[in-house]
Amino acid sequence: MIEPAPPPFTAELAAVSGMIDRLLREEALPERVAPPCLREGVTAYPERGGKRLRPALVLWTCGAVGGNPDHARHAALAVELYHNWTLIHDDIIDGDATRRGRPTCHRLLATHARDAGIGTADGQAAFGRHLAILAGDVLHGWSVEALGRSAADGAPPAVVAALVARLCGHVTPLLISGEALDVEFATRPGVTAAEVEHMLYLKTGVLLEFAAQAGAMIGAGTGDVEAPAVRAAGRFAARAGVAFQLQDDILGMFGDETRLGKPIGADLREGKRTVLLLEGLARADAAGRAELLRCAGNPAVAAPDVTRVQAILDDCGALAATRARAESLSAEARAFLEELPGNRYRALLSEWLDLVCRRES
Amino acid sequence: MIEPAPPPFTAELAAVSGMIDRLLREEALPERVAPPCLREGVTAYPERGGKRLRPALVLWTCGAVGGNPDHARHAALAVELYHNWTLIHDDIIDGDATRRGRPTCHRLLATHARDAGIGTADGQAAFGRHLAILAGDVLHGWSVEALGRSAADGAPPAVVAALVARLCGHVTPLLISGEALDVEFATRPGVTAAEVEHMLYLKTGVLLEFAAQAGAMIGAGTGDVEAPAVRAAGRFAARAGVAFQLQDDILGMFGDETRLGKPIGADLREGKRTVLLLEGLARADAAGRAELLRCAGNPAVAAPDVTRVQAILDDCGALAATRARAESLSAEARAFLEELPGNRYRALLSEWLDLVCRRES
Repeated sequence: MIEPAPPPFTAELAAVSGMIDRLLREEALPERVAPPCLREGVTAYPERGGKRLRPALVLWTCGAVGGNPDHARHAALAVELYHNWTLIHDDIIDGDATRRGRPTCHRLLATHARDAGIGTADGQAAFGRHLAILAGDVLHGWSVEALGRSAADGAPPAVVAALVARLCGHVTPLLISGEALDVEFATRPGVTAAEVEHMLYLKTGVLLEFAAQAGAMIGAGTGDVEAPAVRAAGRFAARAGVAFQLQDDILGMFGDETRLGKPIGADLREGKRTVLLLEGLARADAAGRAELLRCAGNPAVAAPDVTRVQAILDDCGALAATRARAESLSAEARAFLEELPGNRYRALLSEWLDLVCRRES
Repeated sequence: MIEPAPPPFTAELAAVSGMIDRLLREEALPERVAPPCLREGVTAYPERGGKRLRPALVLWTCGAVGGNPDHARHAALAVELYHNWTLIHDDIIDGDATRRGRPTCHRLLATHARDAGIGTADGQAAFGRHLAILAGDVLHGWSVEALGRSAADGAPPAVVAALVARLCGHVTPLLISGEALDVEFATRPGVTAAEVEHMLYLKTGVLLEFAAQAGAMIGAGTGDVEAPAVRAAGRFAARAGVAFQLQDDILGMFGDETRLGKPIGADLREGKRTVLLLEGLARADAAGRAELLRCAGNPAVAAPDVTRVQAILDDCGALAATRARAESLSAEARAFLEELPGNRYRALLSEWLDLVCRRES
């Protein structure tokens, strides 16, 4: 019996992931890292895989503007490594326990402290956090160094220099500002939905925008981030990133717990200022608003509370408004995509957008 | 009355510091950082100054090999920014309270948490640490971006690309490995003086080596780190860095508290594995060894204990051995310096070496 051919998009995404895995195995930098537990902290997240949506974006925008995606291989690897260092530091800050179904970097390194004979749980946790700060730092350097090696792939040196400058001088301050604002919003009353949406752009949109710009710049052989195709590719990805995050908020409150892999209402219990919640606070009546305020940041919130909050967010129009905003951003993304030449890479980017914006888990 | 001319070296070092301050004021990146407290965390250490020994090294090695130091201005700034981001993360890990006479970055940011209404001291401290991780990350990116701008100073683009690759792919993994080993040594028995000396090379020597190599590479217009003048400049600085750290250990135990600005014996109370202490443990008799082990890491150690430990380290030859090692490294540094052309920049580097290795505070 002949098996059906895999859907082209799924196969193409798997090919990107396989290529990143191969490139990772060829990397020499981890061998320079000591002690071994730090090395493990540096390589853990990249080796766990994930969907590799960012490398796909780099390679496919390169192809979409008429370039050879092979010239963007190390740029694709660099963006993936860069994403992973930000996750390590983000996980420390959020105190998260798992990442991609396994212990977060600081939790992983805390177990080394136990093996090394640190007696107290507090001491082990501190060792884990400290080594994880350092693991993120090494990965940060590694990502920039990998981007520099795009020149050996065939990317013009002036384009590579422009990309390094943009990653370090633009993406880093903005993305990290997004992380800091996310921390700061939790301490400040009166944060608006518009402020949160801007934070989502900084925290997620800016790196996706860079990934698309990097591919387009290498593909078009230009160091100009405002060249029309580069601009369109960047805006496509930035809009998709924010739409993705809004969808993430919706799934966190209305999603399928089994498919999502985390409990519904976790954001609510943590008091996370999501656009969905802020829309609810702005639109609900006094009773609904009081209920939302009672539940937000309340660790005792249980299933019946979540059901009540779902009803409030639905009835007051917050769900519809957030969904409409995500769809509007997704439509804007698609319009920017239409500005790129119509070829098979653009078709893949269109499916990439579907995956990012219409996901249910 | 005509004032006497300032000593040339002091005036030259002050000129370097003034130039770095001017360059800092022209930098646009901090304006991209939000919220304002993160921006303050990013700029605090660079603005506090310090001796600016690393930028001086970049500029003077550039001049020593016959280059124009103006071509290395942003490389000098980059090395100073890079040093500062590592200090921010190091201060979090060490839990230090002050840096250059003022609060460390995480302490500074913790006060913002209080102003923002975070009630508990633990919550304020966590906010401070989290924002300081992010401040270090921004400064890390900024340093690489500033290095990239050396091309606009007149450094050849291929040299700049080689420097970025070396900073991110060599300095970062090694320097951060040094930091991690420093943390790990405190958890592991049987660490040797040789292991500690290698850690000191990683933690301090590697960045000084890079600073000297960067200046020499820009000055000589080569991207080859093994070119004779680049190699000599790098080894000069690496040896000086380790000699400096050994001298630091000696001053921490035998120095003048008033000139040093920190209590004598602080390293001893913290249980820091210094070459001096490890030499003492290897050389002292059983009674001396027992006394060293009783005091190392004992927060109750007071002035009479410190006096006894000083006597043990002196009598068993540990002080003499550590001093001899520092002097031997310093002599090696001077021999590498002699390989560079004899001009006024080499004379400044010779005085730089005196300052680093013969300091009393």
